[in-house]
Amino acid sequence: MLLTETMQEVKLYQDIINEGLRNIKFPEKPVDLYEPIQYLLSIGGKRLRPALTLLSAEMFDCDAHAALPTAMAVEVFHNFSLMHDDIMDKAPLRRGRATVHEKWGTNTAILSGDFMLIQSYQFISQNDPAVLPSLLSVFNRTAAEVCMGQQFDMDFEKSTNINISDYIGMIRLKTAVLIGAALQLGAIVAKTDNNNANLLYQCGENLGIAFQLQDDLLDVFGDSAKFGKQIGGDILENKKTFLLLKALELANEEDRLEILSWLNKKEYNPAEKISSIVNLYNKLNIQSYIKQEMNRYTDMAFSALAEIPIAENKKEPLHRLAETLLVRNQ
Amino acid sequence: MLLTETMQEVKLYQDIINEGLRNIKFPEKPVDLYEPIQYLLSIGGKRLRPALTLLSAEMFDCDAHAALPTAMAVEVFHNFSLMHDDIMDKAPLRRGRATVHEKWGTNTAILSGDFMLIQSYQFISQNDPAVLPSLLSVFNRTAAEVCMGQQFDMDFEKSTNINISDYIGMIRLKTAVLIGAALQLGAIVAKTDNNNANLLYQCGENLGIAFQLQDDLLDVFGDSAKFGKQIGGDILENKKTFLLLKALELANEEDRLEILSWLNKKEYNPAEKISSIVNLYNKLNIQSYIKQEMNRYTDMAFSALAEIPIAENKKEPLHRLAETLLVRNQ
Repeated sequence: MLLTETMQEVKLYQDIINEGLRNIKFPEKPVDLYEPIQYLLSIGGKRLRPALTLLSAEMFDCDAHAALPTAMAVEVFHNFSLMHDDIMDKAPLRRGRATVHEKWGTNTAILSGDFMLIQSYQFISQNDPAVLPSLLSVFNRTAAEVCMGQQFDMDFEKSTNINISDYIGMIRLKTAVLIGAALQLGAIVAKTDNNNANLLYQCGENLGIAFQLQDDLLDVFGDSAKFGKQIGGDILENKKTFLLLKALELANEEDRLEILSWLNKKEYNPAEKISSIVNLYNKLNIQSYIKQEMNRYTDMAFSALAEIPIAENKKEPLHRLAETLLVRNQ
Repeated sequence: MLLTETMQEVKLYQDIINEGLRNIKFPEKPVDLYEPIQYLLSIGGKRLRPALTLLSAEMFDCDAHAALPTAMAVEVFHNFSLMHDDIMDKAPLRRGRATVHEKWGTNTAILSGDFMLIQSYQFISQNDPAVLPSLLSVFNRTAAEVCMGQQFDMDFEKSTNINISDYIGMIRLKTAVLIGAALQLGAIVAKTDNNNANLLYQCGENLGIAFQLQDDLLDVFGDSAKFGKQIGGDILENKKTFLLLKALELANEEDRLEILSWLNKKEYNPAEKISSIVNLYNKLNIQSYIKQEMNRYTDMAFSALAEIPIAENKKEPLHRLAETLLVRNQ
């Protein structure tokens, strides 16, 4: 029952956002600048971040539609970062469709991404001047941090000396700060006080880390039909996720050497590599460590939410959405 | 005398801006994100655009230092666009030094450029909330237009069907609007009325077109020592500048075919190509047409300036700077 109810709520937010995205006015020319933007925005995504902005504004009795420009800024910014990250990561697919740089070339993906970043500021700028300085302060800081996170992510690919704390720091910047900001920005639009907005930021940042840890977990232990991705992708790409870093930390010398030998192999049977690493993860009980860590961040998120001095029923939608997105209780 | 005086004025502005640029605080990590930014900002440039912002603020009795964050936004934005354009144009050199993508790779140039675009908004956001909505409105529009200009520029390279009006439209977006905005933003910081700020924008936009036409002219007919570039570069790159488009417009069938045959040749002696095209330009008297066009835009710029209802001596610094930058009277 709860799940269906939450899904219906989220669907309402998604409808508002999708209508907002469809209504973005683009000039007729230059076509090559706008078509890729409309393409990327139209191929979907869960609209989780802008939904959080609308939901957060409503938590403080502000109409969701009043927070729509800010929610759009968050979603357009997120898609800008996807467009540019996909170039850097040489990703051929995004949401199961060709990436913009694959379809139109790198130059177009650079320039259309730049344009989206500017558009996200155009949406932020549509707000009441009274809250504009606060919104900009959060948006500027977050945008800078997301770039830093992407740089750390690329640096970590080349580095052999990353620990779990480095990794958490990186996903905080690359993923979690935008979840935090999405909530904080909605609270600022609703003109609640700074303390409440900051608590919502903390809630979102911690949730964001929990979400990413869950993504790492599902990439290896998830149900591929539900998760919508190939299982073991991170293992094949030698991604230094929480799972791998924890395994390297806990492994005895023999297991450690086995992991390292898989990381260094140039030719191998993919299924064999995945099953060998998964066996090691199971032997070292890595699932329980990552779930513990997810719970720790989720608890911190809900503690921050609990501190906000408003009626508990106002917090329920965010509570339910977070519980739905986190599988720990399922 | 005038020239020296103007140069000293400009030097004062440049000193303020260079100090501002040196004082930008970067975190220690990630190094790969910040080093390219410091590098590009440190290898110089005339700082014309931010100087115009300071000069425009002073025109309305605002201290130049109060306009420094806005001037920095303009300069950092300009350098963002150079960093990304250089990737798209595959340019090996900028200001005689290796471009960022040559030195650090394309991914770094994309991400550091993104970071600079965000930084430019951080500088704009430092302003008095009272003028923030106006500043953002101008900055957002201009940033979007500069991207459109770059897209048109790339589109025109592939197109065989460009006329002079298309070309002027493209350089207006790619180059002139930022010159206009640099002046308009300074006026807004100084809290003068909209009408004055708009007139300064018109002044700058028209000056910007005149400057670009002069660049086209000097690329072919300039003194290579003074101009600091190889003469004839645009001819070798088949750039569809005002000179080439006017020549194609005025040429008889025989001359037209000669120009087109040079454009299509894959192997040729560079000096021979330059001298043949220059001979055709001379035969068609293209220099007089482009100078006429430069004068037309300069006159429009000065007319807009003349309409601003302030003491004439307040306008003198901008007047002198424009005259110094334009060679028409030398």
